[in-house]
Amino acid sequence: MKIQPVRGTRDFYPEDMRLRRWLEDRFREVSLRHGFEEYDGPVFEHLDLYTAKSGEEIVGQLYNFEDRGGRRLALRPEITPTLARMINQRHASLPRPIRWFSIPRLWRAERPQRGRLREFFQWNIDIVGDDSVTADAECIAVAVDLLREIGLTPEDVIVLIGSRRFLDAKLSEHGLARDAIDRLYAVIDKKRKVSPEAFHDMLVDALVGSSVQAETVVELVAGGASEQKETQALFALLAQLGVAEYCKLDLSIVRGLAYYTGIVYEIYDRGQSMRAIAGGGRYDQLCDVLGGPKMPATGFGMGDVVLADLLAEKGKLRQLARELDCYVIGIGKGQEKVLEVVSACRRGREAEGKDKDKGLRTDFYHGTSSNVGKQLKAAEAAGARFVLILREDLLQQEEPQVIVKDMAARKQWKKPLAELMRDPRRAIGGS
Amino acid sequence: MKIQPVRGTRDFYPEDMRLRRWLEDRFREVSLRHGFEEYDGPVFEHLDLYTAKSGEEIVGQLYNFEDRGGRRLALRPEITPTLARMINQRHASLPRPIRWFSIPRLWRAERPQRGRLREFFQWNIDIVGDDSVTADAECIAVAVDLLREIGLTPEDVIVLIGSRRFLDAKLSEHGLARDAIDRLYAVIDKKRKVSPEAFHDMLVDALVGSSVQAETVVELVAGGASEQKETQALFALLAQLGVAEYCKLDLSIVRGLAYYTGIVYEIYDRGQSMRAIAGGGRYDQLCDVLGGPKMPATGFGMGDVVLADLLAEKGKLRQLARELDCYVIGIGKGQEKVLEVVSACRRGREAEGKDKDKGLRTDFYHGTSSNVGKQLKAAEAAGARFVLILREDLLQQEEPQVIVKDMAARKQWKKPLAELMRDPRRAIGGS
Repeated sequence: MKIQPVRGTRDFYPEDMRLRRWLEDRFREVSLRHGFEEYDGPVFEHLDLYTAKSGEEIVGQLYNFEDRGGRRLALRPEITPTLARMINQRHASLPRPIRWFSIPRLWRAERPQRGRLREFFQWNIDIVGDDSVTADAECIAVAVDLLREIGLTPEDVIVLIGSRRFLDAKLSEHGLARDAIDRLYAVIDKKRKVSPEAFHDMLVDALVGSSVQAETVVELVAGGASEQKETQALFALLAQLGVAEYCKLDLSIVRGLAYYTGIVYEIYDRGQSMRAIAGGGRYDQLCDVLGGPKMPATGFGMGDVVLADLLAEKGKLRQLARELDCYVIGIGKGQEKVLEVVSACRRGREAEGKDKDKGLRTDFYHGTSSNVGKQLKAAEAAGARFVLILREDLLQQEEPQVIVKDMAARKQWKKPLAELMRDPRRAIGGS
Repeated sequence: MKIQPVRGTRDFYPEDMRLRRWLEDRFREVSLRHGFEEYDGPVFEHLDLYTAKSGEEIVGQLYNFEDRGGRRLALRPEITPTLARMINQRHASLPRPIRWFSIPRLWRAERPQRGRLREFFQWNIDIVGDDSVTADAECIAVAVDLLREIGLTPEDVIVLIGSRRFLDAKLSEHGLARDAIDRLYAVIDKKRKVSPEAFHDMLVDALVGSSVQAETVVELVAGGASEQKETQALFALLAQLGVAEYCKLDLSIVRGLAYYTGIVYEIYDRGQSMRAIAGGGRYDQLCDVLGGPKMPATGFGMGDVVLADLLAEKGKLRQLARELDCYVIGIGKGQEKVLEVVSACRRGREAEGKDKDKGLRTDFYHGTSSNVGKQLKAAEAAGARFVLILREDLLQQEEPQVIVKDMAARKQWKKPLAELMRDPRRAIGGS
């Protein structure tokens, strides 16, 4: 029987894994330099945690199951509910503001589509316990820093920023109640997926029973927010943080989920031909809803799938080669010495503390051939920078020697074996 | 409503996460220097993949569920079946030997106990496509290198090595058939968990219908294997690889799972008071069983939970502090300049290629106070190495200055702001 992988999941062969690690390392590096600390939670939670945040309709989009005690669990479709749960558990002792990041693996039981898999990674940045607009600006700045770090310019991507607080105020002035506004947001969120005519019709439907005209809403979300202090302050901060060139006000950005309360944003490729690369905003009520104290919060999630698609499209997705420092081969009786030399290379210079050497990344010829050409070919295929050749005659000299071959420079030279065994990194480097 | 985490899972708050990252980085570093390449698979697979390897009885130990198409899936309890599936899919194109590692997160639906959680990490090292005893020795050497790397000595841990091939031969000589031998292995695997008397009784039960005495088996597994070439060769290789001091022959090590076929081993704390830290061995039939070609394979898994327990018991579990290079505070109108300085520190020196600077890990004071003492206290709590103080009067000088404070050395000095903005790492370092 030959068993297939589950549709919508990915296998990470070494070449795929190198790319995943590269991206994950960039997420981590950028987060840390912005002063964020890493956290993570379990991959499954009680199903209640997700329905409490998103309502019963979320259940159909989750992988859910029962444990042996009959408790209903679900694989996490996002990490924000876990974040809120963890903060609620320790809210009395955690220092504020909480500035945390995570790179969780997430799942959703949907039909796989372009940019949307059943299993994916999502970088999350959140600031909790800080209601200032600076916190919103900082999150946007971290996101932009990541985009810059991986080579995406303002010609490639754009951060579209809206304000639920501003729209809330405007729509309330027009006499709309909370639930009518939320229904309207669900429609506005679809604006860039449908034609202007269809959008207009959807607005008319959503506004039935109110005195507000669809045109009024269309104008409102197409306009500016010049009179609004918070949005002005945000753009001033984005300029101070050096990321303004990536950002643009767009009041039609409202985010689909009802739980956002203030500044909201989505990041797109400039042509807006793909799904959003990231989305986020302020959500001041989540901790509260999940049984904790009232706690202001803001943050975003950035998935790995659309990001990798965009990098590929822009020709900025790098093929990462295997990094191998050293490959050891033996000729004749030299083969008997291979493992000892390999072992010395991996161990590195014997020293304590700061002088400790991490050792060289070393592999060796695993076949039975004693043919030099064949072994060198294997070394090249393995991506080795240096090859150490253990030749019987050179090892039998009074002062045994090994041949060091620099594969890129296509040069080779001899080194005393004893020197190599003592400090392999130096012996190889010091040609 | 306040929702709890699922029992047997862990929350990783930043201090827990630093430890998890530290251990994961060690796993990765050691694997790479031994020439292994990283891979990973999905966290769930078709349930068949696990039952094909381990039989129907495994189902009760798994978190299993149906997707919307009614397909039976399970969260991975180990990654070896995924490894075999991935290799089978590309067996024609993958270069041999395949030397891969992974650090998967795994799950089992069991009652949580000491050293055994429902959710855990497990480092896996495997060599596939190489039937030499060198491959077995290499895997053991990687495991020992990790133990050394994290500070565990031969006084702390021991690798107990058995040989199914040797026992198979001996028990066949006594006339036992394959299935009788497998039943016997299941009993021998329990030897260290029960009293000698109970072990004897279990052997007697398992040997019913055969002419073999329980005493014969007791003597066999307590004895040596001096006449066996493979075991001799293995220990010679372990010496060449510099790890013999950690290893000991123990024929009572057979591993519980039926799929092992040759050398097998388990790693324990010296006092053997805890569960095994790692276990592995040769399994030459798995790819075959899962519908692929016949392919020799050997490897091990090492879990994170027992390992961390042992490090804690030995007082070798380090408390890892947060690493923050820089913390910026402002006094009076100096506060208005904070974000710009923070931004410059995070960006680092503007340069291309090799000269590119990763930027400093920088945070700043998020409160509203302008009090120096209060702000410095916050900087200390955040674990900052350096604090940059932006004082209104110093910024208004003809050549604006900032104060750099070394928190550990309790010294401070002035630096031109322009210098700091241009190359923050150098400006701070160059006291």
